Amino acid sequence: MNSFAEWLKQPVKSVDKTHEQQALARQQQLTKPPGSLGQLENLAVKIASLQASEIPDLTHVHITVYAADHGVMAEGVSAFPQSVTAAMIRNFANGGAAISVLAQELTAKLDVINVGTVDTLEDIPGVFDKRIDAGTANFCQGPAMTEQQCQQAILVGRDNVLSDIDNTQLYIAGEMGIGNTSTASALASALLKCDPIDVVGPGTGLDKQGIQHKVTVIQHALELHQSELNDGPLSTLTLLGGFEIAAMVGAYLTCAKQGIPVLIDGFISTVAALTAERMQPGCKDWFIYSHQSAEPGHKVVLNALDAKPLLQLDMRLGEGSGAAVAVPLLRQACLLHNGMATFEQANISKGDT
Amino acid sequence: MNSFAEWLKQPVKSVDKTHEQQALARQQQLTKPPGSLGQLENLAVKIASLQASEIPDLTHVHITVYAADHGVMAEGVSAFPQSVTAAMIRNFANGGAAISVLAQELTAKLDVINVGTVDTLEDIPGVFDKRIDAGTANFCQGPAMTEQQCQQAILVGRDNVLSDIDNTQLYIAGEMGIGNTSTASALASALLKCDPIDVVGPGTGLDKQGIQHKVTVIQHALELHQSELNDGPLSTLTLLGGFEIAAMVGAYLTCAKQGIPVLIDGFISTVAALTAERMQPGCKDWFIYSHQSAEPGHKVVLNALDAKPLLQLDMRLGEGSGAAVAVPLLRQACLLHNGMATFEQANISKGDT
Repeated sequence: MNSFAEWLKQPVKSVDKTHEQQALARQQQLTKPPGSLGQLENLAVKIASLQASEIPDLTHVHITVYAADHGVMAEGVSAFPQSVTAAMIRNFANGGAAISVLAQELTAKLDVINVGTVDTLEDIPGVFDKRIDAGTANFCQGPAMTEQQCQQAILVGRDNVLSDIDNTQLYIAGEMGIGNTSTASALASALLKCDPIDVVGPGTGLDKQGIQHKVTVIQHALELHQSELNDGPLSTLTLLGGFEIAAMVGAYLTCAKQGIPVLIDGFISTVAALTAERMQPGCKDWFIYSHQSAEPGHKVVLNALDAKPLLQLDMRLGEGSGAAVAVPLLRQACLLHNGMATFEQANISKGDT
Repeated sequence: MNSFAEWLKQPVKSVDKTHEQQALARQQQLTKPPGSLGQLENLAVKIASLQASEIPDLTHVHITVYAADHGVMAEGVSAFPQSVTAAMIRNFANGGAAISVLAQELTAKLDVINVGTVDTLEDIPGVFDKRIDAGTANFCQGPAMTEQQCQQAILVGRDNVLSDIDNTQLYIAGEMGIGNTSTASALASALLKCDPIDVVGPGTGLDKQGIQHKVTVIQHALELHQSELNDGPLSTLTLLGGFEIAAMVGAYLTCAKQGIPVLIDGFISTVAALTAERMQPGCKDWFIYSHQSAEPGHKVVLNALDAKPLLQLDMRLGEGSGAAVAVPLLRQACLLHNGMATFEQANISKGDT
């Protein structure tokens, strides 16, 4: 406990303002009307500043998919059966999942971590077995995790970031867990003190009636835990979270402490990002937001983080797929920043603006 | 003239509906909740259908930047001096411009064509000299082009597409021409029969007063040519267009006739796309829209084409840069379509949806 508490207290790394100013100045000198590359200019400046580099570079991307099962599935909150979590873990490892295809194209390092499927799995090459328990407990009947389990899950994320930190220029956490939009909605409602109706959506494909049931289930859980929901974000994560979400929180906290830029994926990733930011304000300086999911609650959580995502492609798959899809934009922003000629180099008048 | 008229009459290639259905069916079988890849699914289906292929592929991208000067610059409608058009042509060829950096990253073929700079240019390696005249004439005093010049410019675009057609899986036309947002705004106003105030914007960086002046200049031109603006889109293009815009129209017409998918860039490209569609309805079946520019008129022209662009990144550079930035999204859509496992292959239940 002590060492966990001590680690948690380690400060977030502060962002380099000198390189931000240098990068802004360079953007004004490149052969284009000022501002005409729009958000790509902001991205290049942000990455240069986070990397404290004049030559921002995103060659080395580390993507980790955290998978786990959820006790709240006992309440019938998903269109898919729970066995799909394990089946998708095999699919990630076999290269057949969306994130597998994207990671290969990006030549990114892809880790897959089982943080807690319902059943034990056979040895799967390429999958780290860090199974904490047979899924979380049903948060409609008690806490989702014990305090120790929550810490253990957070440290799974921490250790994953640290495992390849010298070779990571951008970190992406993805997730897989049938039922985890319910978990994320419960967590978001508690952290934002909003009605679940504002953040609950269809997830993998519930109909209207299914969504209403999901809302009712989460309202019930929030009532059950009401007296403890003011005990801070770590406690809320323990009561309502999932193993994979806690691991993502641990990964995000570690990136912010170590100074590694993070590309946030969709709804569940952003709820983890909000949890990390609430646990340690300032974390979000290290976050870039890739896309706005079709899951309606995503917008609410993004707003709470003052986040403006890059893409709006109606994606809602998870796995880190939305973040992976945005990586080429970040890389292009860096390449333009580094590779374009200045007005002086090209001997071009800057015009009268 | 006769051969031009005959070429123009050649029909647009019809799009393969069998492959569209096959691609839609495959998307339902891939290991993800149906629809969860959002617009990437639509993109994959569209490209499979345009390529009439079960394995859509965008390895070979042909990007051509058409550059020319504009007589309307005599009215003082831009923040940059006209010499920048020629200087940027050199910059494209030297690899220092945004589109040069992006094309290299995409391993795309990049052509640069001078369709009519004010001054003759020295021989520049990598630049095709197809200079029609010393810029267009000032459309505030008469037609921008003669009929013959307009045809000549259209055929520059046609010939460029045909020059590498067997090796082109996606075509992008970019443009460079100081003053060409004025030209495009005039053309859009005439084709859409709207007030210039609805489509005129800052271009490379005009202030409020500059924008108002630009509106007045274009209103004046539309009045001058009023009696001839109902003679059809080719006539309108001749009266108000630019050499580079006419070349883009020719390239788009050719792609639609030959069955080559086109990725449309920003405001000026979309005005050229609208012109092509008006000249030969059905052309737009072959168009994919990459981004929505920060130039306010772009939205109006996109709406006229029922177009929903992929990206909203506040870009407004031209050169084909917005389209180039979207190429990785199209490639990822194809890779996911081709490379993901089906539910059957991965032995996963499809759930109850």
